[in-house]
Amino acid sequence: MSSSELHPVCLPPHVTTWQKLNHRLREIFFPDDPLHIFKDQSWRRKLVLAFQYVFPILRWAPHYSLSLFRSDLIAGLTIASLAIPQGISYAKLANLQPIIGLYSSFVPPIVYSVLGSSRHIGIGPVSVASLVMGTMLDGEVSHSNKKDLYLELAFTSTLFAGLFQASLGIFRLGFIIDFLSKATLIGFMAGAAVIVSLQQLKGLLGITHFTSDMELIPVLESVFNSIKEWKWETIVMGFCFLIFLLVARFISTRKPRLFWVSAAAPLTSVILSSLLIFLLKSKLKHVSIIGHLPKGVNPTSENKLYFHGPHLQLAIKTGIITGILSLTEGIAVGRTFASLHNYQVDGNKEMIAIGFMNIVGCCFSCYVTTGSFSRSAVNYNAGAKTIFSNIVMAATVLVTLLFLMPLFHYTPDFVLAAIIITAVVGLVDYKAALRLWKLDKLDFVACCCSFFGVLFISVQIGLAIAVGVSVFKIILHVTRPNTVVLGNIPGTQIFRSLNHYENATRVPSFLILSIESPIFFANSLYLQERISRWVRGEENRIRENNERALKCVILDMTAVTAIDTSGIDAISELKKNMDKRSLQLALVNLVGTVMEKLHQSKTLDSFRSKGLYLTVGEAVDDLSSSWKHWP
Amino acid sequence: MSSSELHPVCLPPHVTTWQKLNHRLREIFFPDDPLHIFKDQSWRRKLVLAFQYVFPILRWAPHYSLSLFRSDLIAGLTIASLAIPQGISYAKLANLQPIIGLYSSFVPPIVYSVLGSSRHIGIGPVSVASLVMGTMLDGEVSHSNKKDLYLELAFTSTLFAGLFQASLGIFRLGFIIDFLSKATLIGFMAGAAVIVSLQQLKGLLGITHFTSDMELIPVLESVFNSIKEWKWETIVMGFCFLIFLLVARFISTRKPRLFWVSAAAPLTSVILSSLLIFLLKSKLKHVSIIGHLPKGVNPTSENKLYFHGPHLQLAIKTGIITGILSLTEGIAVGRTFASLHNYQVDGNKEMIAIGFMNIVGCCFSCYVTTGSFSRSAVNYNAGAKTIFSNIVMAATVLVTLLFLMPLFHYTPDFVLAAIIITAVVGLVDYKAALRLWKLDKLDFVACCCSFFGVLFISVQIGLAIAVGVSVFKIILHVTRPNTVVLGNIPGTQIFRSLNHYENATRVPSFLILSIESPIFFANSLYLQERISRWVRGEENRIRENNERALKCVILDMTAVTAIDTSGIDAISELKKNMDKRSLQLALVNLVGTVMEKLHQSKTLDSFRSKGLYLTVGEAVDDLSSSWKHWP
Repeated sequence: MSSSELHPVCLPPHVTTWQKLNHRLREIFFPDDPLHIFKDQSWRRKLVLAFQYVFPILRWAPHYSLSLFRSDLIAGLTIASLAIPQGISYAKLANLQPIIGLYSSFVPPIVYSVLGSSRHIGIGPVSVASLVMGTMLDGEVSHSNKKDLYLELAFTSTLFAGLFQASLGIFRLGFIIDFLSKATLIGFMAGAAVIVSLQQLKGLLGITHFTSDMELIPVLESVFNSIKEWKWETIVMGFCFLIFLLVARFISTRKPRLFWVSAAAPLTSVILSSLLIFLLKSKLKHVSIIGHLPKGVNPTSENKLYFHGPHLQLAIKTGIITGILSLTEGIAVGRTFASLHNYQVDGNKEMIAIGFMNIVGCCFSCYVTTGSFSRSAVNYNAGAKTIFSNIVMAATVLVTLLFLMPLFHYTPDFVLAAIIITAVVGLVDYKAALRLWKLDKLDFVACCCSFFGVLFISVQIGLAIAVGVSVFKIILHVTRPNTVVLGNIPGTQIFRSLNHYENATRVPSFLILSIESPIFFANSLYLQERISRWVRGEENRIRENNERALKCVILDMTAVTAIDTSGIDAISELKKNMDKRSLQLALVNLVGTVMEKLHQSKTLDSFRSKGLYLTVGEAVDDLSSSWKHWP
Repeated sequence: MSSSELHPVCLPPHVTTWQKLNHRLREIFFPDDPLHIFKDQSWRRKLVLAFQYVFPILRWAPHYSLSLFRSDLIAGLTIASLAIPQGISYAKLANLQPIIGLYSSFVPPIVYSVLGSSRHIGIGPVSVASLVMGTMLDGEVSHSNKKDLYLELAFTSTLFAGLFQASLGIFRLGFIIDFLSKATLIGFMAGAAVIVSLQQLKGLLGITHFTSDMELIPVLESVFNSIKEWKWETIVMGFCFLIFLLVARFISTRKPRLFWVSAAAPLTSVILSSLLIFLLKSKLKHVSIIGHLPKGVNPTSENKLYFHGPHLQLAIKTGIITGILSLTEGIAVGRTFASLHNYQVDGNKEMIAIGFMNIVGCCFSCYVTTGSFSRSAVNYNAGAKTIFSNIVMAATVLVTLLFLMPLFHYTPDFVLAAIIITAVVGLVDYKAALRLWKLDKLDFVACCCSFFGVLFISVQIGLAIAVGVSVFKIILHVTRPNTVVLGNIPGTQIFRSLNHYENATRVPSFLILSIESPIFFANSLYLQERISRWVRGEENRIRENNERALKCVILDMTAVTAIDTSGIDAISELKKNMDKRSLQLALVNLVGTVMEKLHQSKTLDSFRSKGLYLTVGEAVDDLSSSWKHWP
């Protein structure tokens, strides 16, 4: 350690409360500075940019070329072949008529392609949101007994989902979805996948009477209580198609080049199974099939929205939960593919796009849609270049709706069940769960909570518990922060944790502590007690080893990035305490805001002489040299 | 800046999951290491210490002397003169018979003096807990119509309060009460004081029909709707005594030497007013008085506990809320006087003492008691040396119970109202609220929330909102952490915030950012975006000023004291992002646990060469010298 010149510790420049508030609000709501593109532009240019900002289609449409179109056409047709059977299946998952799933693959993609900024996303219904909507609505209104009311509630939930999503975006509250951490979602998705798969046993085993509950135990009871309803033809054919689909999926995950195998497999299965049932219809009478589907484009449904009556609250709740779940998937999909191709997707703007898509959708007989992982992956692998591939998909779905609906008459339920199972199997990401266990036990606990919560209690409570665990993790970290004893790394002015760096050595007469958290009401008492305990421990150690007596406690405040009034009191209490023990207390590297508050509360005054330093090294040098002069 | 030798960054020594968990749990539940006194002691000594640990009375009783006794006797008689009128008044606040208040000033102080470790505390009923119990119970069971049930519920709530308090102490969950931050309590106390004072208008104005609601609006309505019930004699006498008490209080707060003025004033008022009413009883017939009080010591009440029936939940809820509120006051009182006299009060042990005192109390017709601020202050000022002064007080109360009860027959209600108002006026601490406003705006918001919540909604909801705001403050700090650009302080290896230290200068080609928070799921996306924005901003600035191009981003991770899986992903995402922009990314001063997790997740591997440094200075030196060699 070399003694060197002392550098002054100064207060940060004065900032008014209004400026602080302004800065704070800006960081909370506009962290990405969304208006930076408008800076230093002419008025005319600003107008063009504003239009492009609201309608991202204006950015790429003028430069659209034939070669881009060729790529988009192929991708669009590929995802259409996936979208049609998926749409039918997922609508069944939400307890809706299969045709609603096709409607939902037509209008929303067109709306999104005008408003959205992702280029590779594939829009449509998704399994988790469908499942949650199905469960929540069916819990209060039976889809089989009150068909019309159920449909009305589904559209109304979609409206509220859209309104909720759009308003999150408009009020820039997008960070709320960050509270569904990845760990929570891994558990939730896996739980939902298990439940969805078990529910599909109804179709796969040919059971006619089945529970409408969603939890593990009633579903399993229902499966085994109706053993005599099981139909062997359905079982045999169902499992054959399931194995076919799973093999196709396996091939595609192993060789991404062969993405078309899994993309085409569902439609192939639908065609093959429908043909089979049609040809053997005399022999396979009791295999349950889709039946008649109306031809024609989406009927309007704004008169089917439900605004008065006892179930309004249910619709709002379902809307918010499906809205937040589908938003999470949509935003994650958008971000994933944007980062692969190095372009920006503005989270809040995406929320507005997805929200509007659902608001428009619910007026055209669509239910909740979002950016789907499976469709987007196929879209991307099939070489989509712009969001135009979604318009191609929508056009293909339109052709199907207008002319091809009768072909689905004989499509059996078991093949839809097999398609759903194949789709949700990918949601069980046990490798990610293992990684959580390896890296962060508390994240793993949050993951387990949401998994078992969904499986045994209910979707909403499972999610609530998992969010609670995640928030608790933050609170716990703040309530019981680490305090670390620092030592000098020989030959330097560097001070690091004695535990971490084995070459770090204690400085005689000094106890140097680093506080690793802001000081808040939740930890101010703990830190006071903990620091007293460190001092006590150090004094005992010194006594045992017959070392030089402790003279000074230095607190490295680098990580104390904020302080509240309880924290301020804790510091002045600590100072008094140390004075009573005749120990010097020095604060090192106070962060601007913390320093300001300590100054305003006059706590800093008692540290003015020999109590404030810029670095630990300077504190040690200055204090020990002052002892030499005045022994 | 001088180039110097590079110091290696190493991983912290390996610690098993079990050791980590052990350490973590120890820090959560035993931060004060309560068993350290038993270390290195003989078995016999350990036994003695254990007894002294459980019964602190054994510590001071053997050394008790006559001079201590003289001090305690005076203090005990002084607090008794305060305790008797206060007990009667607070019992009325809880809608209980006045005698219950005296019972509660007899048994609990004796129990506490055996188990408690504070020397200056004064035990008895307190205004806030009395008010809350009165409000909560009366909301469901009317104290006037169902007197017996009400009393049973009061004792049962006391039992649950005691059980809750004791179990918080036994399971070492005492930190839960830290979540009622000082800011919250300032607002809550002030709100409660306003409500209590308004409620006392009943007694002070002589109103007979009064609302049992507790919120501001119904109380005010009740006061003004019953103008014709106002009685001028009561009003005149009531306000005279109120002014007398307030003046006495004012004198004592100005001159702490004259503490006995405010201590004796309540009893003086009671005696004077009772005498007045007794002498003029023919003329002042409709002044409401206490009436007959039974003589005799506390009757047992364990047969009055209520364990079955529809109101059990109410009793539990009331018990928990009054328990937590009285605990907060009791612990704060104990700590305040302990720190004045430089002795330790173990929070968890105090909780057990207060809890047991209430458990025993509820079997002897006592309701919730705790360490009271006013009694303790008088006790301390009157020169109490040990907790024995409480035994003296209890003895005095016993004498009163046995012989002096008839004297209170003519005590008028208005004097009790005046005593209560004088006691709660001190709870409105507007100076503390102003200090909150000055120092921490968010603390002030929490304070206002609890104040207005109590005033306009209800006690429970007011408290819940305030705790919510306090927790939200923590979450907000973590969700939107600061990122600060660092610059070099010329002539040193020190790097500090450019905003804070005006002499700090940017290092050409480097962007040095300090991240001021752990990286969690709640901020990982924000930090990624914010860092990208810093880079964009820096590149624009460089372009405008024609400076040397940006080559490297250095993240000072000193304040990143924890990281979860989302945070790990954010770091590796950021690394990829910087690679794409051909910028180097270096991490400086990783904290042990963070480093370990980054290592386990293999994220650290991509930082091995020229990406990990011990200090910012070394990073800058090493990276810039490496560019010189390979231009």
